[in-house]
Amino acid sequence: MATYVLVHGAWHTGELLADVAAPIRAAGHDVHTPTIAGNAPGDDRRAGLEAAISSIADYLNENGLTDVILVGHSYGGMVITGVADRAGDRVRRLVYWNAFVPNNGECLNDMVPAHYVELFDAISGQSPDNAVMLPPPIWREAFMNDADAALADSAFAKLNPHPYATFTDKIALSKNPAEMDVAKSYINFTEDTALPQSLGWHPRLSEKLGLFRLVQAPGGHEVCFTNPGLLAEKIMEAGRD
Amino acid sequence: MATYVLVHGAWHTGELLADVAAPIRAAGHDVHTPTIAGNAPGDDRRAGLEAAISSIADYLNENGLTDVILVGHSYGGMVITGVADRAGDRVRRLVYWNAFVPNNGECLNDMVPAHYVELFDAISGQSPDNAVMLPPPIWREAFMNDADAALADSAFAKLNPHPYATFTDKIALSKNPAEMDVAKSYINFTEDTALPQSLGWHPRLSEKLGLFRLVQAPGGHEVCFTNPGLLAEKIMEAGRD
Amino acid sequence: MATYVLVHGAWHTGELLADVAAPIRAAGHDVHTPTIAGNAPGDDRRAGLEAAISSIADYLNENGLTDVILVGHSYGGMVITGVADRAGDRVRRLVYWNAFVPNNGECLNDMVPAHYVELFDAISGQSPDNAVMLPPPIWREAFMNDADAALADSAFAKLNPHPYATFTDKIALSKNPAEMDVAKSYINFTEDTALPQSLGWHPRLSEKLGLFRLVQAPGGHEVCFTNPGLLAEKIMEAGRD
Repeated sequence: MATYVLVHGAWHTGELLADVAAPIRAAGHDVHTPTIAGNAPGDDRRAGLEAAISSIADYLNENGLTDVILVGHSYGGMVITGVADRAGDRVRRLVYWNAFVPNNGECLNDMVPAHYVELFDAISGQSPDNAVMLPPPIWREAFMNDADAALADSAFAKLNPHPYATFTDKIALSKNPAEMDVAKSYINFTEDTALPQSLGWHPRLSEKLGLFRLVQAPGGHEVCFTNPGLLAEKIMEAGRD
Repeated sequence: MATYVLVHGAWHTGELLADVAAPIRAAGHDVHTPTIAGNAPGDDRRAGLEAAISSIADYLNENGLTDVILVGHSYGGMVITGVADRAGDRVRRLVYWNAFVPNNGECLNDMVPAHYVELFDAISGQSPDNAVMLPPPIWREAFMNDADAALADSAFAKLNPHPYATFTDKIALSKNPAEMDVAKSYINFTEDTALPQSLGWHPRLSEKLGLFRLVQAPGGHEVCFTNPGLLAEKIMEAGRD
Repeated sequence: MATYVLVHGAWHTGELLADVAAPIRAAGHDVHTPTIAGNAPGDDRRAGLEAAISSIADYLNENGLTDVILVGHSYGGMVITGVADRAGDRVRRLVYWNAFVPNNGECLNDMVPAHYVELFDAISGQSPDNAVMLPPPIWREAFMNDADAALADSAFAKLNPHPYATFTDKIALSKNPAEMDVAKSYINFTEDTALPQSLGWHPRLSEKLGLFRLVQAPGGHEVCFTNPGLLAEKIMEAGRD
């Protein structure tokens, strides 16, 4: 039995990973799906990356979790990288699932094409609390390309405004991921176009990990909604020793 | 029920898409498979791109088709782009299936590696009516790589000489595809080597669409012959709202 | 009935391809799995590339094999290229399976990232007979990413120290593969990270073949261990006329 901690992406909460956690739990593992500070219903959307990372590091400490397989989705890659840097003794393996891989001093927006940064800047600029949302057509076409319209709509309704500072705050790391002394895996869903594939997740970001285990499967950025069972399987293939 | 118009590629006719149309029709949709001017048995092989585009635009008008999901294969991508530019009010979504995506002023040959242009120039130069054919070894290895020899041969026997001017005529568009106000999808079969994959369909040509929905599946350039059922499925995933 | 000769990769022997040969044999074909000079138990690890190539060319001659579908895995790509150059009249088709494709004057290390060359230099430098082994973490994460730990370990135990001169000897060819007058296929397993995918097998090395047939399937570098049945299928799709 292993301990999995699944860290969601931007606009999501831990709750939205329930269908992914269930089959991993059914396979005999302990599974946690905390919500990152800034994404829970009542949270202040002015939260930054430091608070986000601390909230998950604190979660591991408070629950006394060790030998953790720490899985991060998309923006969650920023968070698990920061957690590994400050609570590395609790982490057995990092698993990036179509996730950002930052080196010291990088922010999420540094890994995103310019037209997305402009769009996010404009949207958050209109927001009273520096929050950002995804325009529905981008969600439907580029994130939920493997869903039908009904699922794209129902999943969109579950998203929450995201604290934009977590995209613009530069991460502070004592070591870059490639130098971290922890096992690493990268799960790449091959139809994920949340980043344009010419500037995509894998191998562009995955190879920042140094030696890592690649796991791939068909699906878009939001397989937590479109194929949670397959995602659970791939997380276990990525997470096993 | 939606209306699908499937526009074939070079050397093909609409008739060769019958096995693709059937399962889409069986799912309740209206499906049309017109043959582009220049490709029907008696057509003059000196036809150019303008005539090709007009023939499909005329087809939509004459049949009073609206809200069309307009699907183009390979060279058919040139044609549907032109049709969307001049009859955009009839088109609900453009679906490119391993297809060329031209910007204003580009011709098909601008998107093809130099050694193919040289080969096509040489073959059409030998032809009395500026027609071009594919050499059988290229068809067998690079287009029908997922077929056995018998299917590669029987499908080759159904091809017709292609009007080469449609490869060299530059398209005239009032707007590039990325700026067109119509939904767009790109279907990429992942073993398609009709274009070398280092200079391939996706993401090189797909990303000229701006925001688009990616659909991928295993197969070569000619899944209309090697896996028409899977292709029909993917067309419906690409075409749905 | 066709004749298949399967040429293993570095650290392997022909014996390790038994589970791949069996289903090809069951489909009615004649299958040979010779061990390259330098890799058999008692062989001198100071063997070079010339001896390696000669050993397989001699095998074809001594067994009177003609119309051979000659399959090479990884390092085996160096060997089959050399065999085709000097015994091309015995070869019907070359099949590269995640294999190196050398032009005249290239060595295997010319196609490998610098950090692997440094690692191999260091390991072979420690060896009394210029042999090189793979460090277990690289084997487990980058070669056996699609295996569980038990299979990764049991397969590792079957490997043998590899004659490093075969990685540093430049191949002498009268013709580069693209110019060779023999049919060619490339099988690419899409999760193979033995080479980093940004500097990977396909299309970087496959396209050195000129016109070739692409066959792809899911799996890592060592599908001979993780999925021999699927590999056998793909070898037959790559090898048929």
